[in-house]
Amino acid sequence: MKIAFVMGSDSDLPIVEKGIEVVQSFGVPVEVRVISAHRTPAEAESFARNAEANGIGVIVAAAGKAAHLGGVLAAYTTLPVVALPIKSNTLDGLDALLSMVQMPPGIPVATVAIDGALNAGLLALQILAVSDEAIRAKLKAYKEEMAVKVRQKDEMIRNQYN
Amino acid sequence: MKIAFVMGSDSDLPIVEKGIEVVQSFGVPVEVRVISAHRTPAEAESFARNAEANGIGVIVAAAGKAAHLGGVLAAYTTLPVVALPIKSNTLDGLDALLSMVQMPPGIPVATVAIDGALNAGLLALQILAVSDEAIRAKLKAYKEEMAVKVRQKDEMIRNQYN
Amino acid sequence: MKIAFVMGSDSDLPIVEKGIEVVQSFGVPVEVRVISAHRTPAEAESFARNAEANGIGVIVAAAGKAAHLGGVLAAYTTLPVVALPIKSNTLDGLDALLSMVQMPPGIPVATVAIDGALNAGLLALQILAVSDEAIRAKLKAYKEEMAVKVRQKDEMIRNQYN
Amino acid sequence: MKIAFVMGSDSDLPIVEKGIEVVQSFGVPVEVRVISAHRTPAEAESFARNAEANGIGVIVAAAGKAAHLGGVLAAYTTLPVVALPIKSNTLDGLDALLSMVQMPPGIPVATVAIDGALNAGLLALQILAVSDEAIRAKLKAYKEEMAVKVRQKDEMIRNQYN
Amino acid sequence: MKIAFVMGSDSDLPIVEKGIEVVQSFGVPVEVRVISAHRTPAEAESFARNAEANGIGVIVAAAGKAAHLGGVLAAYTTLPVVALPIKSNTLDGLDALLSMVQMPPGIPVATVAIDGALNAGLLALQILAVSDEAIRAKLKAYKEEMAVKVRQKDEMIRNQYN
Amino acid sequence: MKIAFVMGSDSDLPIVEKGIEVVQSFGVPVEVRVISAHRTPAEAESFARNAEANGIGVIVAAAGKAAHLGGVLAAYTTLPVVALPIKSNTLDGLDALLSMVQMPPGIPVATVAIDGALNAGLLALQILAVSDEAIRAKLKAYKEEMAVKVRQKDEMIRNQYN
Amino acid sequence: MKIAFVMGSDSDLPIVEKGIEVVQSFGVPVEVRVISAHRTPAEAESFARNAEANGIGVIVAAAGKAAHLGGVLAAYTTLPVVALPIKSNTLDGLDALLSMVQMPPGIPVATVAIDGALNAGLLALQILAVSDEAIRAKLKAYKEEMAVKVRQKDEMIRNQYN
Amino acid sequence: MKIAFVMGSDSDLPIVEKGIEVVQSFGVPVEVRVISAHRTPAEAESFARNAEANGIGVIVAAAGKAAHLGGVLAAYTTLPVVALPIKSNTLDGLDALLSMVQMPPGIPVATVAIDGALNAGLLALQILAVSDEAIRAKLKAYKEEMAVKVRQKDEMIRNQYN
Repeated sequence: MKIAFVMGSDSDLPIVEKGIEVVQSFGVPVEVRVISAHRTPAEAESFARNAEANGIGVIVAAAGKAAHLGGVLAAYTTLPVVALPIKSNTLDGLDALLSMVQMPPGIPVATVAIDGALNAGLLALQILAVSDEAIRAKLKAYKEEMAVKVRQKDEMIRNQYN
Repeated sequence: MKIAFVMGSDSDLPIVEKGIEVVQSFGVPVEVRVISAHRTPAEAESFARNAEANGIGVIVAAAGKAAHLGGVLAAYTTLPVVALPIKSNTLDGLDALLSMVQMPPGIPVATVAIDGALNAGLLALQILAVSDEAIRAKLKAYKEEMAVKVRQKDEMIRNQYN
Repeated sequence: MKIAFVMGSDSDLPIVEKGIEVVQSFGVPVEVRVISAHRTPAEAESFARNAEANGIGVIVAAAGKAAHLGGVLAAYTTLPVVALPIKSNTLDGLDALLSMVQMPPGIPVATVAIDGALNAGLLALQILAVSDEAIRAKLKAYKEEMAVKVRQKDEMIRNQYN
Repeated sequence: MKIAFVMGSDSDLPIVEKGIEVVQSFGVPVEVRVISAHRTPAEAESFARNAEANGIGVIVAAAGKAAHLGGVLAAYTTLPVVALPIKSNTLDGLDALLSMVQMPPGIPVATVAIDGALNAGLLALQILAVSDEAIRAKLKAYKEEMAVKVRQKDEMIRNQYN
Repeated sequence: MKIAFVMGSDSDLPIVEKGIEVVQSFGVPVEVRVISAHRTPAEAESFARNAEANGIGVIVAAAGKAAHLGGVLAAYTTLPVVALPIKSNTLDGLDALLSMVQMPPGIPVATVAIDGALNAGLLALQILAVSDEAIRAKLKAYKEEMAVKVRQKDEMIRNQYN
Repeated sequence: MKIAFVMGSDSDLPIVEKGIEVVQSFGVPVEVRVISAHRTPAEAESFARNAEANGIGVIVAAAGKAAHLGGVLAAYTTLPVVALPIKSNTLDGLDALLSMVQMPPGIPVATVAIDGALNAGLLALQILAVSDEAIRAKLKAYKEEMAVKVRQKDEMIRNQYN
Repeated sequence: MKIAFVMGSDSDLPIVEKGIEVVQSFGVPVEVRVISAHRTPAEAESFARNAEANGIGVIVAAAGKAAHLGGVLAAYTTLPVVALPIKSNTLDGLDALLSMVQMPPGIPVATVAIDGALNAGLLALQILAVSDEAIRAKLKAYKEEMAVKVRQKDEMIRNQYN
Repeated sequence: MKIAFVMGSDSDLPIVEKGIEVVQSFGVPVEVRVISAHRTPAEAESFARNAEANGIGVIVAAAGKAAHLGGVLAAYTTLPVVALPIKSNTLDGLDALLSMVQMPPGIPVATVAIDGALNAGLLALQILAVSDEAIRAKLKAYKEEMAVKVRQKDEMIRNQYN
């Protein structure tokens, strides 16, 4: 099963790619798209309607400002949609965060931190891992690696101060 | 030409009806709909695509929380869309306001105050009035009436304190 | 596989139960717990460490104020954690929302709206549905039912205004 | 009919000009003014009182901080006023947004995103287009062009990742 | 010299009257008006232009939502304008506060707390007191009285806990 | 050593008393005062200057709105000051929180949650416990008791759902 | 009578000096001080207590973060205190604004915009002008000059676009 | 007794070190650690459980975004925990502030200003000073030194303007 990354504008790519990379590093195939909820709504609908049939397991939707992309895709599919709010030039991403996380009852999206692309990718992997032991094993290894790195930093800084 | 009032949930009606009433009091026909951007997206699309052909001149879109309705309708029409953010049980309507007003470049909506249904109706009338002298005349009369009422209150309170 | 609902305080139950009910109505087993990240941290750790082995597929973590529960559970498991911010007596739930959604890189949680328990339940079901066709079919039926209800309201209100 | 762009300070021009340009690119005449609600209130009044007689169809009012310009102009005319909040050196434009969008009942303005000058121009064009088929046709073409550009970006990024 | 209290709506009176009362209790004459910056702008202009000639020394302007009243009056006079933001049904008065306090360079208003009518009245008195020894003496007495009351409460509570 | 509770107004007592009670339940003596940073500043100074000599070990300062009390007391003593922001009728306590927690470099206060009186009391006890084994032992017992209560609630709710 | 400018830190001077300069340009004497409410509270008290006797008519208090300076000075004098919130490295000045403007009942300060030093100076001049015809005349001239400058900018930009 | 500084990421060190330095300058021993509440939760638990036995008197916990570190440590110890919110790339530190200060009843942390590392160090020293006369004496000297510096700045600026 693939993880799709859909962004509202290609200018979001520098943020989003951290999520794409972590998914690729797990050996999970990605589909990366630029689809605007407002400028190409027909593509949004068609993408979401066919996502399941096209072998997509989870959709990551990245958008800024009045970020409707996650909700618009979720309207047309029952696949889990991970919503990634992108900070733009005003309001520090709060607009995108609230436009995503405050979805009304019935159509959830799974919102991560503002500009939190790595977590969006990891969350998508965790969702696939519910039924995929291989990904689950890699997630555990990834988690252990993170812990090792923190322990190394801890070692370094303890030495620096003692 | 009609003014359409679309709300994301019938629970928004007690707020929205102040806008409907002012439009009706001007003798302008209304169309009132319950359409959810997330639960009935196909209806949203179909409504917006056909609005112009159906004699609608302006669309008022009322929704709360992650209020995508205005943007979703605007994606499918070039008619002016007046966005009316509705206060719900948390965040005092700020979520709906930002989800509406912060529309990305290319697809504007015309946002009014949180729960500002009267102003949504008046703004829709002002838009029609650009090319409709009769409505314009009524708007001027309405404005004068408002001024008269304020002057009466002023009179009353001046007397009370002198 | 079960869906676990963990809440930081039993006073959160009146909000959380809408999520529990939707999961039960889908015939998916639930485990409901009161575990405090701060007052019973050992229980939080032990619950999260053993969740996968205990047949849990998704964890819903509900908490208010400085809502650490989602992050604390996510620290000990790679299962997807759905974070449900609960509104308390000040700041309208913004504190719980930011304490949950702004998770640092490496440990994601899937945040839903403030007090959005129904969506938390539905999101957990969507996650299980990635590999469970029966749940997927029920989610589609549920979505269609919601649409039917909106269309009925639409019908009613159109009639009321014409 | 002309579209007027009024800004509270000439320092707003670098933001506002994106809106002026889109209107000019549609072949619609503009009138561009610097009028301060607080420093030249008499000019504001006189401009607004005479706007209709001077062939103006829509007024775009751009201002920052305690942005009263939109409301002050709207007080003297029944023409639609599009309010464009400008971000200044503190509070990221939230002050201008709330000073514009939260207009009290009776005197609406049509608020767009903070620094959203392009959308202010497009919204003004949409308003004129209600009764002007030529502009309406151009808006549709403009919308289709935007979609084409998004599809091209989509194509590029899909290729990049496959 | 009089202190004028101008409010944007007579519904603000229950808040504003605490300010009026303190001024009256000092024996300073008041003028109380209902003038709307948006609905009766000509009255606002005329009031402000003539305030000085009419024996007014300080103007208190109370308004809610996009509270332009203070700025609109200040545009037409060099008298000090005390701005009193009124809390309305959404956003807890933050909209009125920012619409008042964030005045652009050149036209100041003196903003007090949201719903802080007593302080608005006292500030107006302090301003007159700069050149009026009698008021200054009363302000000092008023301040001493407040201190006495706090000391009495302190006494009571100390006894309660010892 | 005593723990002092100072509040800016006797109307804060219903909130503050949860903190007083927990301290008394630990057998630690309290001194409870009503002192206003603004209305009785001399008392504030004198209280803070003499606190150490009067056997006070920690000061809890509770105030609402522009809550200067904590900072004003901290200016005159090097004793730890616990700042307890009180929610008032607007802005949900955010004003008091920021007025307390954002103290400039050099003069810290220890801020707890808005209306978090119990935690203010417990934090004061933790501070005394650094050098007082008896209090430390009681804090550990208190913590264990809280855990027991959470475990009982957990038991109840688990049974309810199984 | 003098206008005093008191700032909490000498690092505030680059902002504050615009206010000092406008006062000096009116020929009104200034007294400029660095006094910290928290680090030199005795100086704050002594300055405020003696301000009236020292020929000061209005005090401008500038401070950032938890900006108590205005309130602390106002506690010891009945002179009008103009509060100037200074933006620091976090929260964009909102902390200073709320710490100043939300003063509790009884002790007002007159708050201007964040970093609004020019307006602080002008407001202080307006206050003196209540009883000083010479300053009043200069304020009117200053206001007319501002209008002239805006009209010139207006002229320039009108020409540029026509 | 030592003061421990624990930070969630080594990237926080440039901020945190101002707190470490002030503690060292008082001759109080420090322990500096990098421990992540989410990536190395076992280390967090073990550190907190053993802190008292390891001679730590106060823990300073620094973290950004959804800053759970303070709460997670406080869950396992009754030592006072000073919480230092770190500003990250979005929301200006408000997320970290609310995630720390809004701790639920029973488990307090002592929160200081965003990026307020110096104050975190000073507060930790004040806490130790409750039972350590030597530190108390140094704190008084430190306070007097700060006052001296402010008085020097005051002197300089008074001369500059007179």
